[in-house]
Amino acid sequence: MKIDIKFTPDVIVVPAMELPSKEIGAVVEFQGLVREMEGEDALEGLFYEVYEEMARNVLEGHLSELGGIHGCTAVEFIHRLGWVPVGEASLYIRVLSSHRVEGLRFLADSIDRLKLDVPIWKRV
Amino acid sequence: MKIDIKFTPDVIVVPAMELPSKEIGAVVEFQGLVREMEGEDALEGLFYEVYEEMARNVLEGHLSELGGIHGCTAVEFIHRLGWVPVGEASLYIRVLSSHRVEGLRFLADSIDRLKLDVPIWKRV
Repeated sequence: MKIDIKFTPDVIVVPAMELPSKEIGAVVEFQGLVREMEGEDALEGLFYEVYEEMARNVLEGHLSELGGIHGCTAVEFIHRLGWVPVGEASLYIRVLSSHRVEGLRFLADSIDRLKLDVPIWKRV
Repeated sequence: MKIDIKFTPDVIVVPAMELPSKEIGAVVEFQGLVREMEGEDALEGLFYEVYEEMARNVLEGHLSELGGIHGCTAVEFIHRLGWVPVGEASLYIRVLSSHRVEGLRFLADSIDRLKLDVPIWKRV
């Protein structure tokens, strides 16, 4: 599986799509946006920090394993760092696969694993 | 739930995103592309036809029901008609929701239902 991981302090720009083969039938994309209400508090944004070397290693392991489990072809993962205002994306993921079911499962599992043990923190 | 359904003979252009509230935390997008291999045959594309009035009604019913079940806020649905070459999208869906799980479930279910009984046909 082709894996691209990027951490950036800038607004996330959806990268141009390159199809690695004529057998890609499903493109699934996810954006995680910062919401205003966190419990009863109204936020103006969230501040994200990463332990980048470790995050990259753990994440690459997860994505590679999930790519094998679900049979996906490529994934692009972008996480924004620093201050992210309400309504903007802190996370972008794009998965390419032959069929939709694989791509959707890969996406769901990869976000679950991201929250599990990848060293990225957020604070108000 | 806000529902937009569009059928078009043109290349699908991803519409600009408008956030209806500050409580949207997940944007899930899907593109279904035409693949080259259909069993053992190499295609150059597929030709899509719709019985539009009925398709629109059935689809609106499904999306509205699923929006209630999963608690999503908005969906944009675009289906291309006529000739779609290999590597181009015949289908685009964008779902907005507060949380990712709801958006992913809505997307999976809405494509399943689309294939079930919405009068859209494809031929070589």
